[in-house]
Amino acid sequence: MITTLLTDYGTQDDFVGVCHGVIRTICPDAPIVDITHGIARHDVRHGALVLANALRYMPVGVHVAVVDPQVGTERRAVALRCADHRLLVGPDNGLLNPAWERCGGVLEAVDVSRSPHRLEPVSATFHGRDVFAPVAAHLAAGAELADAGEALDPDELATLDLPVPRRDEDAVVAHALAIDRYGNVSLDLLHEDLADTGLSLGRAVRIEAHERRHLATFAHTFADVPAGGLLIYEDAYRALAVAVNRGDAAVVLGVAPDDELRLSPA
Amino acid sequence: MITTLLTDYGTQDDFVGVCHGVIRTICPDAPIVDITHGIARHDVRHGALVLANALRYMPVGVHVAVVDPQVGTERRAVALRCADHRLLVGPDNGLLNPAWERCGGVLEAVDVSRSPHRLEPVSATFHGRDVFAPVAAHLAAGAELADAGEALDPDELATLDLPVPRRDEDAVVAHALAIDRYGNVSLDLLHEDLADTGLSLGRAVRIEAHERRHLATFAHTFADVPAGGLLIYEDAYRALAVAVNRGDAAVVLGVAPDDELRLSPA
Amino acid sequence: MITTLLTDYGTQDDFVGVCHGVIRTICPDAPIVDITHGIARHDVRHGALVLANALRYMPVGVHVAVVDPQVGTERRAVALRCADHRLLVGPDNGLLNPAWERCGGVLEAVDVSRSPHRLEPVSATFHGRDVFAPVAAHLAAGAELADAGEALDPDELATLDLPVPRRDEDAVVAHALAIDRYGNVSLDLLHEDLADTGLSLGRAVRIEAHERRHLATFAHTFADVPAGGLLIYEDAYRALAVAVNRGDAAVVLGVAPDDELRLSPA
Repeated sequence: MITTLLTDYGTQDDFVGVCHGVIRTICPDAPIVDITHGIARHDVRHGALVLANALRYMPVGVHVAVVDPQVGTERRAVALRCADHRLLVGPDNGLLNPAWERCGGVLEAVDVSRSPHRLEPVSATFHGRDVFAPVAAHLAAGAELADAGEALDPDELATLDLPVPRRDEDAVVAHALAIDRYGNVSLDLLHEDLADTGLSLGRAVRIEAHERRHLATFAHTFADVPAGGLLIYEDAYRALAVAVNRGDAAVVLGVAPDDELRLSPA
Repeated sequence: MITTLLTDYGTQDDFVGVCHGVIRTICPDAPIVDITHGIARHDVRHGALVLANALRYMPVGVHVAVVDPQVGTERRAVALRCADHRLLVGPDNGLLNPAWERCGGVLEAVDVSRSPHRLEPVSATFHGRDVFAPVAAHLAAGAELADAGEALDPDELATLDLPVPRRDEDAVVAHALAIDRYGNVSLDLLHEDLADTGLSLGRAVRIEAHERRHLATFAHTFADVPAGGLLIYEDAYRALAVAVNRGDAAVVLGVAPDDELRLSPA
Repeated sequence: MITTLLTDYGTQDDFVGVCHGVIRTICPDAPIVDITHGIARHDVRHGALVLANALRYMPVGVHVAVVDPQVGTERRAVALRCADHRLLVGPDNGLLNPAWERCGGVLEAVDVSRSPHRLEPVSATFHGRDVFAPVAAHLAAGAELADAGEALDPDELATLDLPVPRRDEDAVVAHALAIDRYGNVSLDLLHEDLADTGLSLGRAVRIEAHERRHLATFAHTFADVPAGGLLIYEDAYRALAVAVNRGDAAVVLGVAPDDELRLSPA
């Protein structure tokens, strides 16, 4: 079975390569897909959102995610079976929560903190190598989930709090959820949240962020506005997003993840 | 059959990982080689040159390239069969042109913009995931090129304009084609273009860029000059290039892609 | 047999992708693990340490390392068989030395500078592609080490000089060996080097670097100190290391690889 990895390890060091080595030692031939290792350090929420979005494009397999600021403390390490047969492996800090919701919920959960599959001695700071990768590799090789750790009530799993967009007079107040390397800013809004707002494709939109106002076009794709032009569009994961054609919307708007953006018809 | 990928997606986000997931879903076992995802954003020409150079080192397979500033507009998406049996997949914006010339020309072309292999619904901004990856994966799994889209006259494919070096009195005026992460500057010159120029291995060379003059040695490899020394050499793709031993020639010369460099005997 | 790669090539250019292509052309199906390509340019010592640490987590295979400031000069290119059956391939500049010591020493060595497996014409600047990758791929495909080049006395191989920590009154003077992308600073100290120093888990530690003093806690893991707090801990490779919880110790201490750090009980 395929294994996928998503972490905040970056590609500068050997963290990712060592996890691949551990997996290949246990399960030599199964494919490994690196979803990304570019999650901002310790940004559990961003990792959670990217994982939830990406999984639908992955074959059913063992999906490891590690964004783990509490590594080495008493936070639990878990492995979960979802209703759609995917297995999720990672720290129990909310990182896996949006993913399991998209996968139909958790049918079975085990605490792998003291898994028999761990590499001994377990380091205090690199559970990706010593816990998550070997547990995942054994599962990918066909081991039973129940044998990977101690049974756990799925209702005890940590969940993630996400901001909620709201209406305020004629405006929708949304939040910057994630910013990609192009500076495109995904919002916590779907197209269907715009009913009765006056915001629609082809119209001009006022965007207010940090008390500064900007004018954007609600467009289909980047090249629908001139270079340097600001646009709102439905991104590839169906979230509404703000971009600058051939530019960087996060810089233009001065926004970071979690910041509020007020959208209203111009 | 092997699939190779070359894009400007970077490695910070999940773009590349999601394309891998799509390919693995359709064609689970075929190897994937990431040629690079570090092409500068929207730099079609750089992507085209890197692809053309790299292909000779790849097994014959399906070669996807995505540098696509016009994604979601009416630009065509294409798949091509070359005389050397390689299949090329990407946007029809000139990106594939130098590659197919190196591969003996295009024998068969199809427009895959509305390919039956697309992932529905096709997003407006991520055709790597929704068009190019699935088309490539089906081809890698053995699907016929003719079944991937509508037949297209190869003569209608977009081509790429490249600058041309010229002689000017005792100098050769060349252009910075590409700059690698070491700051080495590849020029649009081959060794054979230097006949009758007085430029030859072991000799001193005057380099003029942005009206500033520099002195370099025409050498075999970096360590042939002292640390910090400027050299001209034949790079690994047989282009003449400028480097600083243990330094950064692009910074020293202050050049960016497309800039002119005047070379003459010192 | 598996092939692993460790280089200072970075991921921006096509250097790594082209090496993968060369390996896949010769040995289509064997897995490849990228240990890392993020070694600082020309930092032979850092590459050597990362390789030595990482190998124990890799399946036994052909392990290529390329950090090669003298590429194209008369430095030797070598392939080695270690006592634990691993094969090491790379430039003979000390890069492989700590790895072969961890692997039980060298049983057989060949000079592959003029290997029959080379890709002709061999470039002066990219032996990763033209020498190391094809030699490794042929070995991974089952070729005999003796057929990869000319026999070489293992005692002639280049070794690496490493700094040595020392005692100075009540202090231990250690060196920054490596700094990861989190700014964690690994030292050339093991826990067992601390006997009789008064330095132990749970105690306060004075760190002096560049004549500035800092106070740290000797802790188990990052989250054992408050955010922004300095700690000393045993890292995942069992070296003592300095970190800032959710911060960057290299920046806080102002240290670079090789710098001295004085540790004493506070």
